[in-house]
Amino acid sequence: MAENLQVKGFKAAAIKAGIRGRDRLDLALLVCDKSAVAAGIFTTNLVKAAPVLLDMERVATGQARAILVNASIANACTGAEGLVKAKRCAELAAAELGCAPEEVLVCSTGVIGEQLDTNCFEKHMAPLVQGLRPEGFVEVSRAIMTTDTVPKTSVREVVLGGVPVRLIGLAKGAGMIKPNMATMLAFVLTDVVIEAGLLQEMLAEAGSRSFNRITIDGDTSTNDSLIILANGLAGNAPLTKGSQAAETFRTALHELVLDLALQIVRDGEGATKLITIRVNGAANEAEAMLAADTVAESKLVKTAFFGEDANWGRIIAALGRSGANFDQLKVDIAFDGVLMVKEGLGQGKEREAEATKVLKQREFAVNIDLHQGNGAWEVYTCDLSIDYVKINADYRS
Amino acid sequence: MAENLQVKGFKAAAIKAGIRGRDRLDLALLVCDKSAVAAGIFTTNLVKAAPVLLDMERVATGQARAILVNASIANACTGAEGLVKAKRCAELAAAELGCAPEEVLVCSTGVIGEQLDTNCFEKHMAPLVQGLRPEGFVEVSRAIMTTDTVPKTSVREVVLGGVPVRLIGLAKGAGMIKPNMATMLAFVLTDVVIEAGLLQEMLAEAGSRSFNRITIDGDTSTNDSLIILANGLAGNAPLTKGSQAAETFRTALHELVLDLALQIVRDGEGATKLITIRVNGAANEAEAMLAADTVAESKLVKTAFFGEDANWGRIIAALGRSGANFDQLKVDIAFDGVLMVKEGLGQGKEREAEATKVLKQREFAVNIDLHQGNGAWEVYTCDLSIDYVKINADYRS
Repeated sequence: MAENLQVKGFKAAAIKAGIRGRDRLDLALLVCDKSAVAAGIFTTNLVKAAPVLLDMERVATGQARAILVNASIANACTGAEGLVKAKRCAELAAAELGCAPEEVLVCSTGVIGEQLDTNCFEKHMAPLVQGLRPEGFVEVSRAIMTTDTVPKTSVREVVLGGVPVRLIGLAKGAGMIKPNMATMLAFVLTDVVIEAGLLQEMLAEAGSRSFNRITIDGDTSTNDSLIILANGLAGNAPLTKGSQAAETFRTALHELVLDLALQIVRDGEGATKLITIRVNGAANEAEAMLAADTVAESKLVKTAFFGEDANWGRIIAALGRSGANFDQLKVDIAFDGVLMVKEGLGQGKEREAEATKVLKQREFAVNIDLHQGNGAWEVYTCDLSIDYVKINADYRS
Repeated sequence: MAENLQVKGFKAAAIKAGIRGRDRLDLALLVCDKSAVAAGIFTTNLVKAAPVLLDMERVATGQARAILVNASIANACTGAEGLVKAKRCAELAAAELGCAPEEVLVCSTGVIGEQLDTNCFEKHMAPLVQGLRPEGFVEVSRAIMTTDTVPKTSVREVVLGGVPVRLIGLAKGAGMIKPNMATMLAFVLTDVVIEAGLLQEMLAEAGSRSFNRITIDGDTSTNDSLIILANGLAGNAPLTKGSQAAETFRTALHELVLDLALQIVRDGEGATKLITIRVNGAANEAEAMLAADTVAESKLVKTAFFGEDANWGRIIAALGRSGANFDQLKVDIAFDGVLMVKEGLGQGKEREAEATKVLKQREFAVNIDLHQGNGAWEVYTCDLSIDYVKINADYRS
């Protein structure tokens, strides 16, 4: 990324620690010069990785100094030993940084069910901390990749009451992605002045409108974490709920998080297309979600997208099993602006030819109207390709 | 199939009718010499094809003479015109057979959203009826195939009160298969003496323990139908609920229907393996179903099976998002008899090597124990292969 991936008062570094015996950047550290206001949202999976269990506790204090991230091993399904190791990793970083262990958050991504070797962390912690620098985030964005093919970063700048405020974001994730988070780690660092409660509220809202609306394979990871640290160095007047400045910041945060989320879908394992599934006219929002999610996750719909086949029958069949209530003789379906189905009926071969052109684009929207009520929802998905299967049939080998 | 696919008083035929302009058997007729007792279960998809809407009405009378089946076009999402055409097809068959149109059931399978050309039916009905013969079911089993690679048939014989009774079954289906039916058509013909209410009850039970437990891609079709006709020619004493003879027949029907259902999963689009997902120890049966279905439909789990990778982390992650409640430190997972995960923890590399041997089999079971209660459920699934994507990326071309 050409953008300037830095923000006042934060430093970062990454190192090859040989976490799972590979020659790659696999250990990263993001540090604030002073204790920052912290907020986070985490996987809804009942099976939560050790670092998630630890971070949920620590983020609840509203304060943190650093985030230690490793790739290759997820430290999930590792029991009591896994939790001890997550804490030990945080201690090692805290000792080197000179802060309390409770101020260090830890995130892991990679294979489930293997134990971390804390010796790797012990051995590489000093050089990692020595390597911290303001421009280190680019390396970090590479160190956290697993099946990602590109690093994912985003930057926003806003002016709040005359004071410039900056947000930078980093994310990883390409598989095990579905609404309610993903094998997804995302970090946002900002110099805004804000208190923890409001930050948590804004982050939760931004998450629900971005990461919780993307799906690649419908699988939810054990490790998903979206964490924000705000160090207050911008010196703006503290944000208060509902103020103009708070709204400006909220919008910037939402844009940044959505940008990261869409980068994840674009880089979905084997994905060749980014597709927005937009449902309008559902009986209510819950049914709109059911309808949009079911279409977005249907293997038949996603393979048809990969084949650039305007096979709307698969879309309407997915709607019909979604649990959303509707009359099949009222459903409209358009690909971008091309109305393929009107009142449940296909609109002929010519219209299908137009729709097929839309499908050949890298990005497009499927616009569904159920004509039942005012419920609306949209989610972002990708196609299901031969490469998706190849990648996942030998992920661990 | 080498088995003798015939039953007293039933005839069948298939013909190339050019339904969608292809040179293939695509129109079939199954006929009983006299009116038979009829029962059926149909797709739970809100979007029901025209023939399903028609058959649901007609089967409710408990009587039928014939089933007319076409491949290539599903007559789904075809509105009022589709229903008129389904009725017209039944009329054409009834006229040729000399029975009432209401005694003819119609089934369609194929592409959604295209209208049938009833001229094809009109032109070929006379030769189709002339071709009816007791041994015609083998041809029918081929005529109803779409993406199936093999025809699916099954035969059972039982003795009820000293009287031999025969059941034959035919099915098609390879994609759009999930619990609650499938792009699946199945027909059972028997000479048993039984009344319609008991037959419907037994069929619904057999369906719930077979077709409603299989999943290939998690998609539910608009056309799924399982229909049974019983002509009473065996001359057994009429079956009464709870009698020994009724239990014997119930078991035979269940076995036959399960045999057809498993043939469908084995022939799942691109499938290389048949996998039983068995959940025990759930809080209740509903949670066991949620858990089993979520594992059975997970793209990550199914691609790992294809890759013969004993990646149990994906299984436990799927369990964790299923909605079933459990303690991750109590979960056991075995591949056949090989205990991979005990109390939430992997059992080491050696055990994994053993489990990998299990995965190399064509058929195996994943045995999950949540240790929460007595809820149990099992479903049958297949792996997700490169060929699945290839088949579905150009199904219509």
